Formats: sequence, structure tokens, C-alpha cells
Amino acid sequence: MTATDTLLQKIDETQCPIVVGLDPTIDRIPEAIRDSAEKTHGNSLEGAAEAIFSFNRLLLDRLNGLIPAVKLQMACYELYGPPGLAVFQRTVDYARQLGLVVIDDSKRGDIGSTAALYAKGHLGQTPLFHGTDSSNRADFLTVNPLLGSDSIDPFVKECDLFERGLFILVRTSNASASQYQDARINGKPLYQQIAIDVQQLASARKGASRYASIGAVVGATWPEEMALLRELMPSVFFLVPGFGAQGATAEQVMPAFDQSGYGAVINSSRGIIFAVDNVKDSKGSPRPEEFANAAWDAVVRMRDELLRSLQQADKLPENW
Amino acid sequence: MTATDTLLQKIDETQCPIVVGLDPTIDRIPEAIRDSAEKTHGNSLEGAAEAIFSFNRLLLDRLNGLIPAVKLQMACYELYGPPGLAVFQRTVDYARQLGLVVIDDSKRGDIGSTAALYAKGHLGQTPLFHGTDSSNRADFLTVNPLLGSDSIDPFVKECDLFERGLFILVRTSNASASQYQDARINGKPLYQQIAIDVQQLASARKGASRYASIGAVVGATWPEEMALLRELMPSVFFLVPGFGAQGATAEQVMPAFDQSGYGAVINSSRGIIFAVDNVKDSKGSPRPEEFANAAWDAVVRMRDELLRSLQQADKLPENW
Repeated sequence: MTATDTLLQKIDETQCPIVVGLDPTIDRIPEAIRDSAEKTHGNSLEGAAEAIFSFNRLLLDRLNGLIPAVKLQMACYELYGPPGLAVFQRTVDYARQLGLVVIDDSKRGDIGSTAALYAKGHLGQTPLFHGTDSSNRADFLTVNPLLGSDSIDPFVKECDLFERGLFILVRTSNASASQYQDARINGKPLYQQIAIDVQQLASARKGASRYASIGAVVGATWPEEMALLRELMPSVFFLVPGFGAQGATAEQVMPAFDQSGYGAVINSSRGIIFAVDNVKDSKGSPRPEEFANAAWDAVVRMRDELLRSLQQADKLPENW
Repeated sequence: MTATDTLLQKIDETQCPIVVGLDPTIDRIPEAIRDSAEKTHGNSLEGAAEAIFSFNRLLLDRLNGLIPAVKLQMACYELYGPPGLAVFQRTVDYARQLGLVVIDDSKRGDIGSTAALYAKGHLGQTPLFHGTDSSNRADFLTVNPLLGSDSIDPFVKECDLFERGLFILVRTSNASASQYQDARINGKPLYQQIAIDVQQLASARKGASRYASIGAVVGATWPEEMALLRELMPSVFFLVPGFGAQGATAEQVMPAFDQSGYGAVINSSRGIIFAVDNVKDSKGSPRPEEFANAAWDAVVRMRDELLRSLQQADKLPENW
């Protein structure tokens, strides 16, 4: 089963096309978790990383069963050095043990032999003196295509070997996305050419479903472009950032889904994991379970909005 | 003193505009180092990382005084997980203690608040429960501009705060560089527009020298484009990959230097650190000091070629 087949199955099981971004920063996580980690591990990188792991575990335990997948933003872990990277890996392990699909949002990009090393480190196996290290890897990795096919092919190779998947940056959700992504090539904007190239990679690699394990990042903040990108990439699963905090609505992300209501997961990160900040009646520093409950409620609200919009667009999957 | 002022001073001291890439892979490092690391740390990520640190220290001890700077390719370290990242940081510390300028070649790129976390992690300081962690950072970081100014500005901010520098990918050295970097924008190729934007950032941030700490990666494999890029970016220091192994000659990189012979460092990685592979009379597995001596010889040869070409181009710095 390909990585995307697994993701599709999990989406069907949960009837929830949402990926929650575990993008914690220590200033915003529960005080009780911070205090406990500081007591046991000190005011150090280790302590901060440990607090993040506890917070992630809290969220994973609460949201497991409700959501199909989580996304880990590498910058939030790399910031804490080696202990941060260890907590990234422990979180990947923990989430996968729960049966969640995991996206490693590292946006790596480099040339040939270097890209191959990133691919091994994030998707494959690490060569040792003898044999390889088989530490757990995420199911998907995000990659940056600016350097061209040299920078993509080594990742595709590793995906083929280890049944992993990619989400290639096609159209990002940020305000300055168009600054360079709208440059023109072959009579069209660059992001559309990248879409065409991604579709070509994907169409040669389809699994049981209509979607390959070569996916695309398509920002929710560009709804008109999204419809065209869905047409250009019929075999490509979409990872859609930009919902909520960045301003996109459920209605605006509908073009990411195909006519059967599949083909995309919508990401929300801080809007979910820090949803407690929007709960007005919380007095003092909210307790960990208040964070977890607010995250649950925020996912349910987001899911209901998405399902309602899918229904209005006549795209709700048949068995849901 | 800005990061680029320091780099320029080191180049003047050594009369050697070369940055050596510490891009080790464990299959190619000295057998004696591999065996020793395996004995002490086992056939593990820790063992592999330890072997890499020993190899880096061997090279740094030998090349110190001859070269101004080293570049660490993050993919080579990340591959070994948390121990690999720890060895990355130990190598940065060790090289900086020797007085070498250090370039962190991570090619990070992400949007706004996430870019800010990468910037803190690679150039600034990590927030803890109280205060910040002051682990050593490299002097420069490479960054990917595909996501536009949102993805660059947070790095520039951290550079301004901590006297660090950037090398922004303008034109990469790989074969497929032109695939997307030649898309057209405002009547010119994308890489030229990025160059113009980088120049604008740099011209507002010049130090004592004519060069700012906002630099550019300009591949040596595109010599004609390099001359134009030098014109477009008069305040921008160039990091030039692609020499040697990727085929570029000393003559071809001359356009990277200004009329006074400054403004660029030429990178060579595996052509230096594994130069022993080209020494034909080495019998059996070469000893560590043979690796170090071959690396020294390779740098001296490369430096002499560059200085000869600078002289022929009438660009040799006055005091050299």
C-alpha cells in the first residue's frame, strides 16, 4: 500500500480531511507542562524539547481517532538542537504507533548527491559502518523544487524504495508567494509549470487509488489558482496550508477536492493546538486538558465546516 | 565588524579565496577513524557521527592557516539524526575556535513565523523557559528564496541582530538549475530578478567594506551568467559552488571577483576532503594523515590556479 493509499484510508475512516500541524513553541504551551519539564530537565534545550514532546503527546492522545494525520514543522524542533531533533523523531514514532499518518514538513531542497542524503535521512535509511539505521521516518516529506529535477528525483527514488510520499511546493500560502512563483515559463506562471512536472511524476506512480504518493503543497489563500491546479494535477494529492489563521475559509478550499470529495487534506496548526487562546472563559493559565479539549473542539468545528462545504459543493464522499 | 568584513579579513590574511566544504560521508573517510569510532561508540548513529567529527577535526587542524573558511553541508549531518546534528554544532564550534569563518549550508526556506524559527535556530538564539540558549552558530547560512520576501526577511532580521550573514540562492550550480530559475519575470530570467532583490537588501546593509553580509550563491558552472550577476549585485559577496568536481575551472570563476580581486569565495568540497582518492601511489586504505596531506595539497593547487587566473585577469589584490 502506498503512503497516499494509507492516507486515503485514514481519511475515510475518520471522515475528516484534516491534518493537524504540531508546530509548538514553548512560550505558548501549558504552564504545567513547562514547569514539569523544567523541574526534571532544567532550563535547557533538553527541558524545552521535553516540554514539547509532552505537549505533542497530550494532543496526539486526545486527537487520535478524530484525525487521519499530523504534520510536524521541522523549524519548531530544529530550533532546540539535537534534543529538538530527538523529540521530532519521538513524536513521529508516537504518532505512527497510534496509526496516524505523519508529514515531515522540512521543505528540503538541494542538488543531486546532497538531495540524496536528505532523502535517506528523511525518508529512507541511514548507512552505518555496516548495514543501516532503521529509525522511524515520517510517511511524507515536503520538498522545495527551485533547483529543478536534480533536487526532486533523489527524493522520488527514496519514496519508491520505502513506500514514502512527497509534497512538492507548487503554490505556497504566504503573501509573497507570487513574487517569484508567478514568473513565466512556457507561456504560463512558474507554479503551473511545476504543477505540470509534478503531475508527470505522479501519473507514473499511481497506487490502488487515483492518487500517487507524489503530492503537492497548494496554499488555500489562492482559491482561484487552486481550481486550475486541481485540473492540472489529477493524480496529485494536495496538502493545503493557509486555512484559518492565514485567512482561508472552508468554501475557499473546496477546489482542492475532486468531484468525489477526495484528493486533499487541509492543514491547520496553531489554530488547533493553541485553540485554547480563543476560549474566553479560561481563567489564569489553562490546564493541559483545556488545551487538549479546545484542540478537539477546534478540529470538530473545522471538520463540520469542511463537510458542510463539501455537501454544498455536491462533493461529499458517498459513504460518509 | 560584520560577518562579511571578517570573511574578507581572513581571505586577505590567507590570500586564499577558498571555502572548503566539510561534506563527509562515512563510506569515504579513513578506515582507521571509522574503526576507532566503531570501537568506542558502536555501529550506530553515534559511532558514525563521532567518526565524522574526528575526520572534520583532522582536516580543520591541517587546513587551519591555509584557508579562510569552511562550509558544512547540513544534509551530511542531519542524515545521522540527533548525534549528527550535535557533531554539526561541535564542528562549527571547533572551526570558529580556530578562527575560521563557518558557513551553515542548510538552504532553509519557509514562510514568515516559521522562517523566523529557522533564523533563530541557525543564526540567532533559542528561547528557553527563561532567557535563551547561546550555543554557537555559524557565521553564514544559505537560504532558498522561492517563497519570496516573506521567507528572506526573517533571516535578514536575525543577521542584523547577531552580526551574521546570508548566502541567498540566486543561481545554483546543478544541471537542472535553469529548469525553473530561467522562468521570466519583469522581462528577465527569475534568477536575475532575485539578484536585483538581493542587491537591494545588501546595499542597505554595507559594512566597512563594499560588501554587505547579504551574499548570494552563484554557481561556477554558468560563467556567462556570472559576469552579469556580478554587475547586478555590486554590494553582494558571492559563494561559488561548482568548481572542480562539477567541472568549472579557475578561469571560469573569474567573473565572480570584482576588479580588485575580492567579492567571492570559491567552494570545493569532496575534491578537497577526498583528494586522497586521486593520489595513485596510495596502497591499501590511506592513513588519516594521507587524507589530510592530500587535502592540503589540493587546496594549494586550487589556490595557485585561482591566483594565476586572477593575475592573468589583472585582478590580483594589491597586497598579495
